[in-house]
Amino acid sequence: MEHARPLPDYLVRRYHGWKATGYEKNKGWYLQLAEDGQHPRAMVVSCCDSRVHVTSIFGADQGEFFIHRNIANLIPPAETGGNHHGTSAAVEYAVTALKVSHLIVLGHSSCGGVKGCYDMCSGNAPELESKDSYVGRWMDILRPGFEKLGEGDDESRVRQLERECVVISLENLMTFPHVKSAVEAGRLSLHGLWHDIGAGDLEAYDPASGAFRPV
Amino acid sequence: MEHARPLPDYLVRRYHGWKATGYEKNKGWYLQLAEDGQHPRAMVVSCCDSRVHVTSIFGADQGEFFIHRNIANLIPPAETGGNHHGTSAAVEYAVTALKVSHLIVLGHSSCGGVKGCYDMCSGNAPELESKDSYVGRWMDILRPGFEKLGEGDDESRVRQLERECVVISLENLMTFPHVKSAVEAGRLSLHGLWHDIGAGDLEAYDPASGAFRPV
Amino acid sequence: MEHARPLPDYLVRRYHGWKATGYEKNKGWYLQLAEDGQHPRAMVVSCCDSRVHVTSIFGADQGEFFIHRNIANLIPPAETGGNHHGTSAAVEYAVTALKVSHLIVLGHSSCGGVKGCYDMCSGNAPELESKDSYVGRWMDILRPGFEKLGEGDDESRVRQLERECVVISLENLMTFPHVKSAVEAGRLSLHGLWHDIGAGDLEAYDPASGAFRPV
Amino acid sequence: MEHARPLPDYLVRRYHGWKATGYEKNKGWYLQLAEDGQHPRAMVVSCCDSRVHVTSIFGADQGEFFIHRNIANLIPPAETGGNHHGTSAAVEYAVTALKVSHLIVLGHSSCGGVKGCYDMCSGNAPELESKDSYVGRWMDILRPGFEKLGEGDDESRVRQLERECVVISLENLMTFPHVKSAVEAGRLSLHGLWHDIGAGDLEAYDPASGAFRPV
Repeated sequence: MEHARPLPDYLVRRYHGWKATGYEKNKGWYLQLAEDGQHPRAMVVSCCDSRVHVTSIFGADQGEFFIHRNIANLIPPAETGGNHHGTSAAVEYAVTALKVSHLIVLGHSSCGGVKGCYDMCSGNAPELESKDSYVGRWMDILRPGFEKLGEGDDESRVRQLERECVVISLENLMTFPHVKSAVEAGRLSLHGLWHDIGAGDLEAYDPASGAFRPV
Repeated sequence: MEHARPLPDYLVRRYHGWKATGYEKNKGWYLQLAEDGQHPRAMVVSCCDSRVHVTSIFGADQGEFFIHRNIANLIPPAETGGNHHGTSAAVEYAVTALKVSHLIVLGHSSCGGVKGCYDMCSGNAPELESKDSYVGRWMDILRPGFEKLGEGDDESRVRQLERECVVISLENLMTFPHVKSAVEAGRLSLHGLWHDIGAGDLEAYDPASGAFRPV
Repeated sequence: MEHARPLPDYLVRRYHGWKATGYEKNKGWYLQLAEDGQHPRAMVVSCCDSRVHVTSIFGADQGEFFIHRNIANLIPPAETGGNHHGTSAAVEYAVTALKVSHLIVLGHSSCGGVKGCYDMCSGNAPELESKDSYVGRWMDILRPGFEKLGEGDDESRVRQLERECVVISLENLMTFPHVKSAVEAGRLSLHGLWHDIGAGDLEAYDPASGAFRPV
Repeated sequence: MEHARPLPDYLVRRYHGWKATGYEKNKGWYLQLAEDGQHPRAMVVSCCDSRVHVTSIFGADQGEFFIHRNIANLIPPAETGGNHHGTSAAVEYAVTALKVSHLIVLGHSSCGGVKGCYDMCSGNAPELESKDSYVGRWMDILRPGFEKLGEGDDESRVRQLERECVVISLENLMTFPHVKSAVEAGRLSLHGLWHDIGAGDLEAYDPASGAFRPV
């Protein structure tokens, strides 16, 4: 594999800085984690977006959350044909091997993936309709959410779709037999959240009202 | 979606703590990120493992890294048939929409996914061979790595496979036309890393020798 | 302009070395910075002193900090008469055009400008009192700081004045309407630091106590 | 001064990382610099732009360059009326107190200050003409450069103006008596450079031809 390049110097320097401080200070914990394995209490499905740090928002340290990050924090429905299902594999591992107690889907404002889906479904992003568009085919998972949007201007409908994206992922989670049985046995609980990056707000999905409310 | 549950209190409390402190202190930055959008310099592909915090290791704050996390930090080869390719969509978005300059694959010690692949390929985990096993079918991406392993005891061979997993992901990255052309134009550089959780060490793949060396 | 001379060879050689290594390794990032523009998170006002490298201290690479360097890291008060206000222009650009989230004033030990001001105000540097002394007139900004110094020997009073210099600059920043409104809206935060060159220490101004404390 | 805020955590962590590594490794040099004072060989006048790191380009460590950074790396003409002349003070200190041997003006591509001047002089940025605009009044220094621009499209004329900005600063330097006498005595040499951020190129002003040529 001749294309790999050395790490940029600024990252090498920062790593050595962390090794001499952050690591040194928590060495015992890192050693325990290495020997004893991980025992995370929750799985979090979050977006790849660089502005969303779930560990900051929830003050979590190494070992607490099993974190899967993909575009727009989506869960596809259960489907065993096809080949490599990265998200489904992560969910399966978290629920059956790690036996996490919570599965949190964390959506957020200004999500580029949700915006792309909105534009695609509105006919304004034909390039995403191509069968060769990985982003377009991935965002197909959210199409049923677009159909459910109410009236409003584009901005408010995109914000609706960001929340719908969380609900659809929760619904898709229940199509996985191992998730469904763990939820029904009371061993796993599902949570839907939406985070406003600029305002720092956090809203939770409330199944009774079908709305998101500040936590 | 009637199955969602309220967020556990301990997370609600921690969130309010962060809002009153971490958010408050960096509010200007969050507002700028929300209005100006993200401009990450690098994409990092890391494992879902709760023990690996790439932002800690590299002293990175919100906005710096576009982070995809899946089981065993794997990149599948380019393939547009099938349905939802979450990893390929994340790579496509990072390289074509965000135009990141660096794409870093970060492997780590004690990876449960790599161990599962090793057991499966050694005939010791028949359940992972089932066509219904999402984890098994996901870890199929790493099978060619198992074939290349040298002699040794199981532990050292698993460690080899963890590094091989990084190299295979780098190789698969080059099968995506948009990655290949960005690399060849000098707009994107690929980096392979392996992190020892307990020792805190970091090794980088050196294409000249084909080995991993401490950074 | 007939007085310009060719760059000394040692700098030409070092430049070619950087071009072949540092630039080559980070080419993708430089191209992105050139095309996408700068999005710095913070402005730093630091001294011209050759011994103070703010990018080293904070592990910052190209694109992170908008850096203004003048003698003694001073901010003059807002004043629109007169002609060219370089520092005020830099602050205005950072706050209104780049919309930085942090404005950091970084003082340091052994500052020649602060020492000159101390000598001038103590009557030991009459040449700095001349109206033709650019350094003297520039250091006039710090005169109110000298008046506030407590008892002590010269060395400890100079150290006090180095810190006072940071506080006065922070106070002067608040006389600029665009700074004041950004601070009050929570879009900008001000930070005062003092760095000991020999010991490598870093202290931050704490408004509650009015003192500088190790970070 | 009640408005100061604590340094963001990510910078505190990075500082501690530097202290434990970069500082620790070079402690002897920092102690010597602190005790023996600075003896820089050159002064560099560079832009505040976050993308221009003169210490990277020239492989310079602490103690080598006395660096003044302002918007568009401008030197105003000598003028002792008015109040605080930060740039003139920095030049005076470098030439008369530190007795640097080289004074380098480093311009660069995509300079926001130069672009603002170009727009202002073209009648496309009336807000910069306001007497309250610090950036506008600062960029007035470059107005004579706009008058000298040849034919061409806007982009090529802006590029011309970036270079003209370096030449005008060199010319203004010679209006300072202490600079003029040091240059004429052969104790100081002036250098004009222009750096292309994306391509990594460096050009030097050649007084014989009046053009910039690759170094």
